[in-house]
Amino acid sequence: MSEIVLAVHGGAGHLPKRKITGKARLHYEAGLTEALEVGRGILQRGGSALNAVTEAVAALEDNELFNAGKGAALCSDGSVELSASIMRGSDRSVGAMVGLRRTKNPIRAARAFRGHLHGLLFGQEADAYAEAKGLEMVDQDYFYTNNRLRQWRKYRETKSVVLDHDAESAHGTVGAVARDRRGNLAAATSTGGLVNQLPGRVGDTPVIGAGTWADNQVCAVSATGKGDAFARIAFARRVADLIELAGTAPNEAASRALEEVKEVGGTGGCIVIDPSGQVFLPFNSAHMLRGWVRGKGAPVTAIEVVD
Amino acid sequence: MSEIVLAVHGGAGHLPKRKITGKARLHYEAGLTEALEVGRGILQRGGSALNAVTEAVAALEDNELFNAGKGAALCSDGSVELSASIMRGSDRSVGAMVGLRRTKNPIRAARAFRGHLHGLLFGQEADAYAEAKGLEMVDQDYFYTNNRLRQWRKYRETKSVVLDHDAESAHGTVGAVARDRRGNLAAATSTGGLVNQLPGRVGDTPVIGAGTWADNQVCAVSATGKGDAFARIAFARRVADLIELAGTAPNEAASRALEEVKEVGGTGGCIVIDPSGQVFLPFNSAHMLRGWVRGKGAPVTAIEVVD
Repeated sequence: MSEIVLAVHGGAGHLPKRKITGKARLHYEAGLTEALEVGRGILQRGGSALNAVTEAVAALEDNELFNAGKGAALCSDGSVELSASIMRGSDRSVGAMVGLRRTKNPIRAARAFRGHLHGLLFGQEADAYAEAKGLEMVDQDYFYTNNRLRQWRKYRETKSVVLDHDAESAHGTVGAVARDRRGNLAAATSTGGLVNQLPGRVGDTPVIGAGTWADNQVCAVSATGKGDAFARIAFARRVADLIELAGTAPNEAASRALEEVKEVGGTGGCIVIDPSGQVFLPFNSAHMLRGWVRGKGAPVTAIEVVD
Repeated sequence: MSEIVLAVHGGAGHLPKRKITGKARLHYEAGLTEALEVGRGILQRGGSALNAVTEAVAALEDNELFNAGKGAALCSDGSVELSASIMRGSDRSVGAMVGLRRTKNPIRAARAFRGHLHGLLFGQEADAYAEAKGLEMVDQDYFYTNNRLRQWRKYRETKSVVLDHDAESAHGTVGAVARDRRGNLAAATSTGGLVNQLPGRVGDTPVIGAGTWADNQVCAVSATGKGDAFARIAFARRVADLIELAGTAPNEAASRALEEVKEVGGTGGCIVIDPSGQVFLPFNSAHMLRGWVRGKGAPVTAIEVVD
């Protein structure tokens, strides 16, 4: 029986130091810890890695500090569009949703879509699918927070499109990777996208092979950062291929793929778990909100702070 | 100065023999040849690989025999949704569009979006972007053909969702790869999706790393077949990684990646060009409509027929 392992991230970027120190830091750490405990509880009860990453990410979606679900970044038209994807390592089955506007927990919609003939669905049909599956639906109002409205008004004036974590009052994409008792891996990622992005934008989060990857034989990956650059190089598949085809160590593979993201104009980070249960959390932005837990051990959280 | 090379495909699948023999075969071959001549003309005049693959694919979109642009397969609600992507090998810049309903030539929309901060756009915003760029807009009626309406009515009754090329009267996704005089590579892919698919479905065609890939140092790839399976394994990136990281010969890399598509339930094919200008056109379905041209040579077309 394998030791259970879970890692989560809450976004990567270049927030000003004052935004991730003191009380703010405690709130972030509490959010990450809660997600870790939710996922770990599932794994301890013998649940699957797939369910653990789903519910760990759902906990981060429900927490308005993070840019996913409630508290998501706003598009240029002031609306919220949510995306998520999930992949199961045992059979590489996938589910992904883009542009959800009514589904409370996008990751549960991606989870419900897993195994469908189609792998990825966008827009109204995606919400309709989630609703037909009995998932909780909400108004756009549910997702709004005062911080997000302030942030949107500010960036709309300057017409800039920024990574949530580079914005003054914002906090990024979320994700989780896990190994369950049976040794199965899974990965899940969820986001509200970029601040002031065009409605209709598809970043890396919902794209299998870009923001999310899981293969029991190789690794599970969830990415965060400037999603367009991650999508452009098919980041998560690249990490897995560097490990599988080039024999690169997982941490080095992730770091090299992050360098390749940089070559096309992006920065960010990822969380990676390998079949032996080792966890890696590299990033080349100033910080990445992250945490991990192993067996019955205490959850560990970290938020790098670089001036 | 490099010799110019262009390859195109018009879909892969399992059409009944009578659909791709005799007069039908001649029509397909004429369509492929026309696309090759359009693209080759651009390359001969010193145009870029990017422009050549765009216009070769646009010629296939305008030909109602192929499942892209005019003559595209219909969604379950009877509407047409079009997707396309493009990638330039010199800088790995990308452009992609999903769920276009009014843009006459989806590949030109993807081309116009290349270099945008966002890499992929879906739905109404995608059409709006194309319109703002001055591209030709049409009504849904433009895309319909009698064959498609008959096909849709038939498959709607049986509630089956099928690859266009597996359907009685239909003919698949299109794509092109090229090398220009300067040795630059590019790839482009365009599709109407699966017959009777859910509106909102995103297959492999618009996903960089799934249906399309181009990197001057490695290869350019355009895929066709059961797109959900291609997307699930990030097919095109996989072909490139097998070449770059494992040192696999391009033809073998493509064949191995197609085997991996089969493992997750799909079949199809792809066209690949490497930096030396060699072209490979492997497939593991019964046939793939395909063609290539080199320098001033005569265009070659082929349509495998397996009973």
